[in-house]
Amino acid sequence: MSRQLKLGAFLFAPGNHAGGWRHPLARPETDMDFDAYVHLTRTAERGLFDTVFFQDTAAVPSDALSDGGRTGFGRAAYLEPVSLIAALAAVTRHIGLISTVTTSYNEPYNVARRIATIDHISGGRAGWNLVTSQIEDEAGNFGLDHHPRHADRYARAEEFHDVVRGLWDSWEDDALERNKEDRYFDPQKVHRLDHEGEYFRVRGPLNVARTPQGHPVVSQAGASEAGRELAARTADLVFTAALTLEEAQAFYRDVKDRARKHGRDPEQIKILPGLLPIVGRTEEDARAKYQELLDLLPADLGIKPIARLAGTLDLSEFPLDGPLPELPPNNSAHGRQKLLVDLARRENLSIRQLAQHFACAGGHQVVYGTAATIADRMQEWLEHEGADGFIIQFPYFPAPLEDFVDLVVPELQRRGIYRHDYEGNTLRDSLGLERPSHPAQRAQQVPS
Amino acid sequence: MSRQLKLGAFLFAPGNHAGGWRHPLARPETDMDFDAYVHLTRTAERGLFDTVFFQDTAAVPSDALSDGGRTGFGRAAYLEPVSLIAALAAVTRHIGLISTVTTSYNEPYNVARRIATIDHISGGRAGWNLVTSQIEDEAGNFGLDHHPRHADRYARAEEFHDVVRGLWDSWEDDALERNKEDRYFDPQKVHRLDHEGEYFRVRGPLNVARTPQGHPVVSQAGASEAGRELAARTADLVFTAALTLEEAQAFYRDVKDRARKHGRDPEQIKILPGLLPIVGRTEEDARAKYQELLDLLPADLGIKPIARLAGTLDLSEFPLDGPLPELPPNNSAHGRQKLLVDLARRENLSIRQLAQHFACAGGHQVVYGTAATIADRMQEWLEHEGADGFIIQFPYFPAPLEDFVDLVVPELQRRGIYRHDYEGNTLRDSLGLERPSHPAQRAQQVPS
Repeated sequence: MSRQLKLGAFLFAPGNHAGGWRHPLARPETDMDFDAYVHLTRTAERGLFDTVFFQDTAAVPSDALSDGGRTGFGRAAYLEPVSLIAALAAVTRHIGLISTVTTSYNEPYNVARRIATIDHISGGRAGWNLVTSQIEDEAGNFGLDHHPRHADRYARAEEFHDVVRGLWDSWEDDALERNKEDRYFDPQKVHRLDHEGEYFRVRGPLNVARTPQGHPVVSQAGASEAGRELAARTADLVFTAALTLEEAQAFYRDVKDRARKHGRDPEQIKILPGLLPIVGRTEEDARAKYQELLDLLPADLGIKPIARLAGTLDLSEFPLDGPLPELPPNNSAHGRQKLLVDLARRENLSIRQLAQHFACAGGHQVVYGTAATIADRMQEWLEHEGADGFIIQFPYFPAPLEDFVDLVVPELQRRGIYRHDYEGNTLRDSLGLERPSHPAQRAQQVPS
Repeated sequence: MSRQLKLGAFLFAPGNHAGGWRHPLARPETDMDFDAYVHLTRTAERGLFDTVFFQDTAAVPSDALSDGGRTGFGRAAYLEPVSLIAALAAVTRHIGLISTVTTSYNEPYNVARRIATIDHISGGRAGWNLVTSQIEDEAGNFGLDHHPRHADRYARAEEFHDVVRGLWDSWEDDALERNKEDRYFDPQKVHRLDHEGEYFRVRGPLNVARTPQGHPVVSQAGASEAGRELAARTADLVFTAALTLEEAQAFYRDVKDRARKHGRDPEQIKILPGLLPIVGRTEEDARAKYQELLDLLPADLGIKPIARLAGTLDLSEFPLDGPLPELPPNNSAHGRQKLLVDLARRENLSIRQLAQHFACAGGHQVVYGTAATIADRMQEWLEHEGADGFIIQFPYFPAPLEDFVDLVVPELQRRGIYRHDYEGNTLRDSLGLERPSHPAQRAQQVPS
């Protein structure tokens, strides 16, 4: 069998394109509307997506707040995604449900419980996208003026991750006996964590039994050195941004090599770049749709989409139609800054052109064309070790997701690179990831 | 119309009675089984309950851990209730969904988002039971050796509450315009909180629009001086424990009087004592059921159910069949300790008898008898200002909840003290609580 594409649907309501919500077919009220999310998730499930994927920011970004969201940059109000995936679990059967939760402003015991609970509720379909906070506005909602430094955030994230995985192994799979004549559980099979680290002291055990997946899927998105290293050691899935196959291949090779160095099977870490497809019945139709989206961008969008990537430099002091100046190091998003600079140098783009590009998909790849054109690109990256699949982004909702499922999915299936049915019951089954055995089981299996 | 009972179903799986999970009809696997919770919640909805109600502890209690849960005291593993009510929202239509969340080990911005989100998902049926942490084992999961002092926990809880309510008013009801020709929202109608207090600094605004209920329902359960004062100022619903009508009346009067002093309409704070009914077809049948439950208590239950209420005193050093000694002040649960001491003195109970009593319903009232007997008790308390309704507890699941709905609910309806249909769409509608207007609206309504 050919290598098979893994697909995630990035349900970033009201849309990934900064002007998308203005489209005549857009339903921006999706942002707060559970029934709309149910429709989107079931549509993705009809399209046999491995998972839906929810981004998160624990703040209204100042950019959006100041202009009433005119420029569409930064989301103002939307449903908190962990609660949302819990609810979606109750009304779907096969599709994975991954929500972002920041390690910067949460406690690992609380996060471990919630994601484990959703893995139980969904019968093994939960995932946690582990991030460090980037948008500075979050800090103000948690007692700080600024985020901690990038290095500190990553050190905390790393320890946070280890605590959460440790807590997920609190209970051995068969610890709960519920033997009415005797005891509720075998206390020898319930383990305290007794973690004492730099950021956390957590005793455990977790008060949730081991989950259907053993460990819910852990996704990460960091592209900096620290982010790649953490992902290579710990992630099941990596959501990344790449604009060319060469970039994608370099990242793919790098992370899989690092995973190997950590003693991991590189097949057990799936790399999914973002891709925003604009599907037309013809190439011309697709190009017209793309232009229609660009025309929806407000004239005063200015530098918003890329301003925060410039670090301490105020881009508004530079001519909009001039080149991108040298940027100082950025505390909040190392990897994304590099992508911007590389694109600017490679394609010789002005600040305005860069901003328009980032307004489409926040630095992710945009492909417009027929289903065949889009499938070509996906197949090329899949077969040349640029990607194990994609996190598909949508300029608005719901039409572009419906188009993708109705037009692109059948094309991928015809080529033999995409499933015709779900492989099993869990997100790990879909992604081809092993269920981690419990450490106590592994200890018993050591050869004598 | 007569005063109408308000009812909550306390879904404390595997059961409120320490031996209940051993009952032949008990399904203790309910603790981790979403489908079982769906059945329970739909059964309560069939019985027109105002709400289901979930307790929470962010730890496996040491007591349970040491003996494998033999004595049934302290729950070992169960679904995290905020995620659970989010999922239940998707598969129910009318019933309220209240989950406990501690103020001791969370951040108000996160809690405000989650509960507001569930209010949106459920169409206005979410509630938050605000507590301060009691079980000391929780501290170890959040970097501490012991809880902060009772007074500090309450001061934090009070500030936490004010921040959460403030965040719920971030958006005016009509702030989101989503005007495709212009802007996404009216920035004049989105308000930063800029809270700076002793425990929290929170800028806001919340990134969730104002909810169907305006404010989700806030429930509290504290019975200490600090707890009553906080409830009287801020709670919509008070879950309390009382063993006699006199006790219940004293609490009821006290909290409603305090509410009046805070300028509130006392009808806008509902007082619901716990009640564990054991329903029989005949009185004899009910008594036999009660005895059957007592017989399920393990012989070595000992002092567990009341040990932690004794504060620093080690009750195991006193004879089990002797009287309760004087107890030193208790840092973790003032109100519950007073209930224990009052019961011991009033009924002259030994330590063993007290422990057995608390093993039934943790200090709540237990009533066994026919549907008429149980309805009598409920009606008496309702009509004599002992209660606005009850939080109904169940020794195990699911049979006792089904019995209550099939036998007691029709009896309450026949007496004209219980609804025949839901009054509206939201939990506030069921409870007869007004939807709070937004502060900006109230400011406009000041008479000129």
